[in-house]
Amino acid sequence: MRRIAYLGTLVALAGGLAYTAHAFGDAGETTAPLFGVTIPPGYRDWRVISVAHEAGNNNDLRAVLGNDAAIKAYREDKLPFPDGSIIARLAWSYVPSAENNKVFGRDQSFVAGAPINVQFMVKDSKKYAATGGWGFGQFKDGKPVDDALLKPCFGCHVPVKARDFVFTQYAPSP
Amino acid sequence: MRRIAYLGTLVALAGGLAYTAHAFGDAGETTAPLFGVTIPPGYRDWRVISVAHEAGNNNDLRAVLGNDAAIKAYREDKLPFPDGSIIARLAWSYVPSAENNKVFGRDQSFVAGAPINVQFMVKDSKKYAATGGWGFGQFKDGKPVDDALLKPCFGCHVPVKARDFVFTQYAPSP
Repeated sequence: MRRIAYLGTLVALAGGLAYTAHAFGDAGETTAPLFGVTIPPGYRDWRVISVAHEAGNNNDLRAVLGNDAAIKAYREDKLPFPDGSIIARLAWSYVPSAENNKVFGRDQSFVAGAPINVQFMVKDSKKYAATGGWGFGQFKDGKPVDDALLKPCFGCHVPVKARDFVFTQYAPSP
Repeated sequence: MRRIAYLGTLVALAGGLAYTAHAFGDAGETTAPLFGVTIPPGYRDWRVISVAHEAGNNNDLRAVLGNDAAIKAYREDKLPFPDGSIIARLAWSYVPSAENNKVFGRDQSFVAGAPINVQFMVKDSKKYAATGGWGFGQFKDGKPVDDALLKPCFGCHVPVKARDFVFTQYAPSP
């Protein structure tokens, strides 16, 4: 009984420490909130910037959407993006459509399958000054990925510094 | 001079006939307005239904968008789509991105290139009763394609009659 009580105290203590560490951002590198980006409400309603297919390991179909501030900057061709701009990248698995192929008469159609994840780039030139003014977030099933996964984000975006670190270009109306 | 005046009369007459024929829909099969679908203002701002890649001859990346009525029906899983629903399919050429591939370290990235065309399905159960309640339109650079190109549309959509003749299914939020 004493052992159980002792274990209980340890667990409670560890939980408390973990909570405190997380809240103040002074925990180990893998648990500190790197950017603190959360899911912007209503992002699924945002307007389309462009679409893409990443083959390779990802093998996804993706839609890149922007909130009002991001879309306005894109359409007016204004860089850098103003603070408050958010760019969302939604990814779904790249799956052949037997239904469509039957109509086309050959295998040529690939559609969005199961959702994979969603990523956000949030512009805040002060808060994220160390990473070009952008904070990065990634979520799967509504839950954030481990911050360790967000560490390489900015480094990969450096080659497009001239476009304010944003890869996706606006797809004009057909 | 007389010849010029005569030609001018002929041109004016032909123009008048063509206008009259178009207005009353009694011209030849290739010029009669089959559905009379026009480009809905602001369609580029509509919300995303899904994305796709058509390989083969098309080889395009596409975004399928819906106006408010269409999106509401999709999200509430309500069929048939109500009158006033419009579904837009925007297509861009499927092009490799050398810029992205350099970052990924291999050839895997395909993005939206030049705009190809845009198609619309407009729901009006009375006006388009002969084609499942849907009118079809296709535009390139803002101009409608020849109506002859729209004749096969409905036939291809018949296999998905159970989904109110609509191929694209709603892609859930990742």
